[in-house]
Amino acid sequence: MEHNLNNTISLLARTPAALNALLRDLPEFWTLQNEGEKTEGGKTWNAFDVVGHLIHGEKTDWMPRAKMILQFGETKSFAPFDRLAQETESRGKSLPQLLDEFARVRAANLEELRALNLHPEDLDRRGLHPSLGVVTLSQLLATWAAHDLTHLHQIVRVMAYQYREAVGPWSVYLGVMKCNGHSS
Amino acid sequence: MEHNLNNTISLLARTPAALNALLRDLPEFWTLQNEGEKTEGGKTWNAFDVVGHLIHGEKTDWMPRAKMILQFGETKSFAPFDRLAQETESRGKSLPQLLDEFARVRAANLEELRALNLHPEDLDRRGLHPSLGVVTLSQLLATWAAHDLTHLHQIVRVMAYQYREAVGPWSVYLGVMKCNGHSS
Repeated sequence: MEHNLNNTISLLARTPAALNALLRDLPEFWTLQNEGEKTEGGKTWNAFDVVGHLIHGEKTDWMPRAKMILQFGETKSFAPFDRLAQETESRGKSLPQLLDEFARVRAANLEELRALNLHPEDLDRRGLHPSLGVVTLSQLLATWAAHDLTHLHQIVRVMAYQYREAVGPWSVYLGVMKCNGHSS
Repeated sequence: MEHNLNNTISLLARTPAALNALLRDLPEFWTLQNEGEKTEGGKTWNAFDVVGHLIHGEKTDWMPRAKMILQFGETKSFAPFDRLAQETESRGKSLPQLLDEFARVRAANLEELRALNLHPEDLDRRGLHPSLGVVTLSQLLATWAAHDLTHLHQIVRVMAYQYREAVGPWSVYLGVMKCNGHSS
């Protein structure tokens, strides 16, 4: 399956607006409640946490890693990604502020990505992930889009969790109520 | 957990715009591909199919059932819901047309719901589901919202499926790639 960069960019460009349409001014019942404590300890994430995590990815993960691949190839591994950075970075901010910030940093990154004017052969260039080993620029960019989807999937699941009792017997028909999270 | 009708309406009001922001003019790679054949035969759904299904629910399921509860209580069971109606009803339409239609029928239904001016005691009124037995108006309305979420969850999962190979080794970190669908 060849990676079509236009498909990736089309999706990446829409995620901020989709989250904005779903979450802005939605009652905190939906956006600030999570799925409770994890069995191994620690809080699960709510929609507010996830949007903060997406912002942190824009700042430190996707484009910085793409540029590392282009500059250093496999000679230097990516900096590990801090999955809890939003706990401090989102502090004191409102969800509308985070949605605005996500839209802004995503748009700037896509502008930078387009300016790289990548050719198909560039997508085969290889980099070094600190845990996964050798990866390609193509895989990194596809993962950027799929990472949006995994967190949209998560936000929707966390929201549905708030109605797990309210739906009564219908829960048997609602697949999202049976989703155990698959670790994210 | 008491059912707060404002929370339900807030969510129901946002789903058409969220789907519109995510799906309108997105490449068909994302919107017309599904998850392949089911093991028990038949096609899985793509985003286009799901939006058609949501439209059919607006026309035949949620508000008609709410009005049946108010009119007939437990004396008359709901008409079964046709889960495959969109196969004929969506034929010849484009996804933007379906997104417009979903927004229109949802808005009309919410207007009708608000006009019912339901009081908390109305939410306890009971009706008869053809398979689930006795249900309450509260459960029906909560399920209307949760049904949006289960299908958002599904659409996002089906989209992620299209990148299951493109992400390469990152798939281990992407929960959505491990979601087996939970039957919807």
